[in-house]
Amino acid sequence: MEGQEQTEEKRKRMSCGLYTNWPESLKGAIQESFEYGFHFIVTQLTCPTFVKLFGGPDAQHVIGWTDRMLTSNEWGRLIVAELSRNIDVDSDVDDVRRSNKAILEKELGFASHLGVPAILLYLTKPKNTQLARIVNDKLVSGYTYSVWIQIPMVHASRADPIGEIEHDTWDWWNDFRSFCDYDKRIGLVLEIPDVKNAPSSEELDRWIGEPIKALVLKASFFLINQYGKPVLPKVHQDIVQRFMSIDVQYIIHLDVEAGDHSLYVKYMNFLGKKLYMCDTMSQFVQGCEDYLQNPLQPLAEHLEAPVYEVFEKDQTKYDTYQKAFHNVLEQWSENRIPVVMVVGAGRGPLVQAVLNVSNILSKKVKVYAVEKNPYAMNTLAHRNKFEWNSQVTLVNQDMRNWQAPELADVLISELLGSFGDNELSPECLDGAQRFLKKDTGISIPCQYTSFIAPVQSLKIFNEIKNNRMPDKTLKQSYECPYVVHLANFYQLAPTEPLFVFDHPNFPTSGENPDNKRYKSIKFPPVKKAAVLTGFSGFFETVLHGDVTLSTNPETHTQDMISWFPIFFPLSAPVHLKAGDIVRVSFWREETVEKVWYEWCLESPYRTAIMNPNGRSYFIKKH
Amino acid sequence: MEGQEQTEEKRKRMSCGLYTNWPESLKGAIQESFEYGFHFIVTQLTCPTFVKLFGGPDAQHVIGWTDRMLTSNEWGRLIVAELSRNIDVDSDVDDVRRSNKAILEKELGFASHLGVPAILLYLTKPKNTQLARIVNDKLVSGYTYSVWIQIPMVHASRADPIGEIEHDTWDWWNDFRSFCDYDKRIGLVLEIPDVKNAPSSEELDRWIGEPIKALVLKASFFLINQYGKPVLPKVHQDIVQRFMSIDVQYIIHLDVEAGDHSLYVKYMNFLGKKLYMCDTMSQFVQGCEDYLQNPLQPLAEHLEAPVYEVFEKDQTKYDTYQKAFHNVLEQWSENRIPVVMVVGAGRGPLVQAVLNVSNILSKKVKVYAVEKNPYAMNTLAHRNKFEWNSQVTLVNQDMRNWQAPELADVLISELLGSFGDNELSPECLDGAQRFLKKDTGISIPCQYTSFIAPVQSLKIFNEIKNNRMPDKTLKQSYECPYVVHLANFYQLAPTEPLFVFDHPNFPTSGENPDNKRYKSIKFPPVKKAAVLTGFSGFFETVLHGDVTLSTNPETHTQDMISWFPIFFPLSAPVHLKAGDIVRVSFWREETVEKVWYEWCLESPYRTAIMNPNGRSYFIKKH
Repeated sequence: MEGQEQTEEKRKRMSCGLYTNWPESLKGAIQESFEYGFHFIVTQLTCPTFVKLFGGPDAQHVIGWTDRMLTSNEWGRLIVAELSRNIDVDSDVDDVRRSNKAILEKELGFASHLGVPAILLYLTKPKNTQLARIVNDKLVSGYTYSVWIQIPMVHASRADPIGEIEHDTWDWWNDFRSFCDYDKRIGLVLEIPDVKNAPSSEELDRWIGEPIKALVLKASFFLINQYGKPVLPKVHQDIVQRFMSIDVQYIIHLDVEAGDHSLYVKYMNFLGKKLYMCDTMSQFVQGCEDYLQNPLQPLAEHLEAPVYEVFEKDQTKYDTYQKAFHNVLEQWSENRIPVVMVVGAGRGPLVQAVLNVSNILSKKVKVYAVEKNPYAMNTLAHRNKFEWNSQVTLVNQDMRNWQAPELADVLISELLGSFGDNELSPECLDGAQRFLKKDTGISIPCQYTSFIAPVQSLKIFNEIKNNRMPDKTLKQSYECPYVVHLANFYQLAPTEPLFVFDHPNFPTSGENPDNKRYKSIKFPPVKKAAVLTGFSGFFETVLHGDVTLSTNPETHTQDMISWFPIFFPLSAPVHLKAGDIVRVSFWREETVEKVWYEWCLESPYRTAIMNPNGRSYFIKKH
Repeated sequence: MEGQEQTEEKRKRMSCGLYTNWPESLKGAIQESFEYGFHFIVTQLTCPTFVKLFGGPDAQHVIGWTDRMLTSNEWGRLIVAELSRNIDVDSDVDDVRRSNKAILEKELGFASHLGVPAILLYLTKPKNTQLARIVNDKLVSGYTYSVWIQIPMVHASRADPIGEIEHDTWDWWNDFRSFCDYDKRIGLVLEIPDVKNAPSSEELDRWIGEPIKALVLKASFFLINQYGKPVLPKVHQDIVQRFMSIDVQYIIHLDVEAGDHSLYVKYMNFLGKKLYMCDTMSQFVQGCEDYLQNPLQPLAEHLEAPVYEVFEKDQTKYDTYQKAFHNVLEQWSENRIPVVMVVGAGRGPLVQAVLNVSNILSKKVKVYAVEKNPYAMNTLAHRNKFEWNSQVTLVNQDMRNWQAPELADVLISELLGSFGDNELSPECLDGAQRFLKKDTGISIPCQYTSFIAPVQSLKIFNEIKNNRMPDKTLKQSYECPYVVHLANFYQLAPTEPLFVFDHPNFPTSGENPDNKRYKSIKFPPVKKAAVLTGFSGFFETVLHGDVTLSTNPETHTQDMISWFPIFFPLSAPVHLKAGDIVRVSFWREETVEKVWYEWCLESPYRTAIMNPNGRSYFIKKH
């Protein structure tokens, strides 16, 4: 069973819809499409010729299909309603605008009456202010469907720029959704261009940061292969592959006479298998995409078994720790058994790594496992008796208070959070170095650095808005960092290093050096117009010598699944033009009972400082 | 496929757990239980003898099972953790209380560490104030498990009352959950008594109003039938049947040497089929139990296709309307075709009923269908052309404004809500009677009466608290009525009639009579101590002559699925003793733009008047 499940997962589900132009029978069109393997159809609900054909005394009352033609369940699952293409509510002619508005409102109401899951609207020109207002009005007053906005991925003006300025349809979209306050029910349908107008890689990156509901593929794009079956050219396959990191559906537009329609669905399913990269990481993150988690508070709250279990699943991480300790123990030349203290031992994965090295090198070690959580200590007691031959000294104490009976040669810890220092590794290790030998003592890790990058993610912006905890205000919700596997996002510049911490960190004069930090970072100019919504955070750590771990996308440790990025939101989206420079200030602050971050934008304009005095988010020291 | 699904639904799912006393191997106990068909086990996590048996230097660190024995997924789905039975945190002896509190807190923490879905605690005496405080503290500070409180359904003192007062364990439970602010995570596990101590029907009714998680069945209750298999006596079968209206699990307690444990599970599954009454109503309401809906606002908002579709599924309702009109048309003796106006025609079910009668009796009628919703009018146009031979005159107008070209002999409408008048049937029909013949005109319906009953439902109380709309305060949420199929509730007294409306309602003097109402209702004394949380509402209507419809439980029209009850909450639970008298005042108020209800308790004590001036809920007239 398990094997089978895994096979199932190694493909991307490719949901396909068929664009169906005013069929003779809606019921028939649906049945036919399903026989072909499509999951939904995109079609009109109403058109003026329909009313004319209807005739008779009641023609004045006719709007479109009768709702009784399908069950509510069918209307609600299978039909995306395309509104009339020629509606122009942004006309400069007042009469045209008014009459078109009446038509649009009737169609919007009818779609709501039928209970379709989504309506489809076209943007055909840069200015859509009136359209946005009407749609926004309906969404605010309770219409429940999604609104799919269809635009070309690349505007026709690019292929033929003579006499016309080149339009960027992203601007049209960005204006529209900004008017609608980034409502999460508004999504995008992108028309994939033909081969010679394929978008650049940067353009694709930006689209992937948008709420794409579907991509439109014209039947005329398909080539016929040697077996007489339709296949997409390499350029289009590459585009499909790029969108696999987010959930996208496909709409097949039969712009040419096509034979067996089921071949398109079969081919898209085939692509879902062929193009889907399924590495350790992508398997692990499945279902976590863009899901917000609050960072752990491991000092104030005991971690629970499910959390430890997730930690322990990361073989790569512990192999790397083992390698680091291997290097240390291999170099050990003194004529005595080294004292190794695992501080924050949890359920013992680092203890196991230390004992593994000891066995491999046949060198004895004296191991202490220091852990404050009594329930993890219960586990350690079981492991010590049944797996470790009772050779480990167990200490159920907070490392910051423990009076160690001897000094350690090596301190090993895994106290790093998604942002490196954000689970208070600096404070814990500063407290623990009391029992590390001052001149020769080694800390694994010996250094870590946090990294940040500016990001567009309206998805996260909306998640924060719509899923705030009942005990937090909206303002507080935006002043918190979140641990999140970003999927539907666009990174606006490369990551830059932020705060550095070294261990051990013995005071050169009297007092312990503090762990407050400040840095201002200036990113390179952004390449395309975009919407900045916050900063994603990562870290790199040196365990020992050249043995390192990294969650920074540019240097990420291969196959390591631990640590999703951290995300620091801004309280409102910041619109950027191509060439704009993002500059941000970050602080790490502390008092006796807490540590927190503050951040603010300095360029392209100043924003209020987020989280002053840790009012909305802080890490508890106790 | 559909046939199969229906068969599947005609049984109650009977989830069974096995009580397992400190097994040698937890993993083994689970595997064995699953082979028997059980879905979970109830067992201890820790006991002092375990620590002693463990021995060795680390015994001080041992609490109970090692968490690594099961996966987090297994801990989280399969284990209900029974806390040590002999913990007494309500002892009068201070030292006992303190030391027991330390043990309890360690066990509560350990259960949280393991991530079990529920813990099980026993109440063994009337006073559990300290226990409630500790449990409440954990729930408030973020422990996520459910708390199952186990008590006998009937206290042993009833069988042997000599020398002891008779305890009612419901009081113990009610005190405990009241201290914990009715937290929805706190549920009940009831020990079913032996045959001779079976509870009364009224007692069972009250238990069914509680959040029962499981019923405990002792293996010794089972008799061995002629095939050598365990079966429950009739008395116990009756108890099981009574609890089928709510979701209850069963815990089998093997208090006697038992053979093949799987026979118990098989037998309970058999009962799930044998005892489950699956009438039209119970099939229809599946999944809607205790789910709060806001009442419709049909005058302010157009009803949508899915709503009409649900209406139209009720064959019984339209058959009854048809019968009423049949009686009218059968009596028709004038020498002209009667004019029938269906006001609020929707998608035409009453039009269809009228035409059916006309066909059956071979008597012509002139039918108008008046409907303000243009999208329903679209459907009527289709039906008129393709089903009704264009014989119906369609009018897309609000009945309150329409200038009818002639007077009607019969007005037929279905404007009633769950509380009868709450969708403004009185206001609409008062507006429509302008075009009803004054002396001979008939309204179907001609009368309706609302009914109310006092109810205990902490389930609804919590639903309101936990699922309030983001745009409403908690206070506003309690001042709204809800449409809800009550399942987990206890009705404290029989229903009583409230407001009566008659149609037509021609003014005797100049002005239209208004539709304001007031009534104070005194219910008979409650039979058992209980917690009043609000009032459920129903209605009875006379369509014509002796043809009636009713949602009042005491006179409910058989097989009619339309109309869930309405529920008027109180903002805080009211504790009642046996014999207490509930008295309530209800108002129906109106202005030019809205209608609303106000209500308040007058006995056993006065509460603030709910919804004054319709501040939290009103029905819009436009």
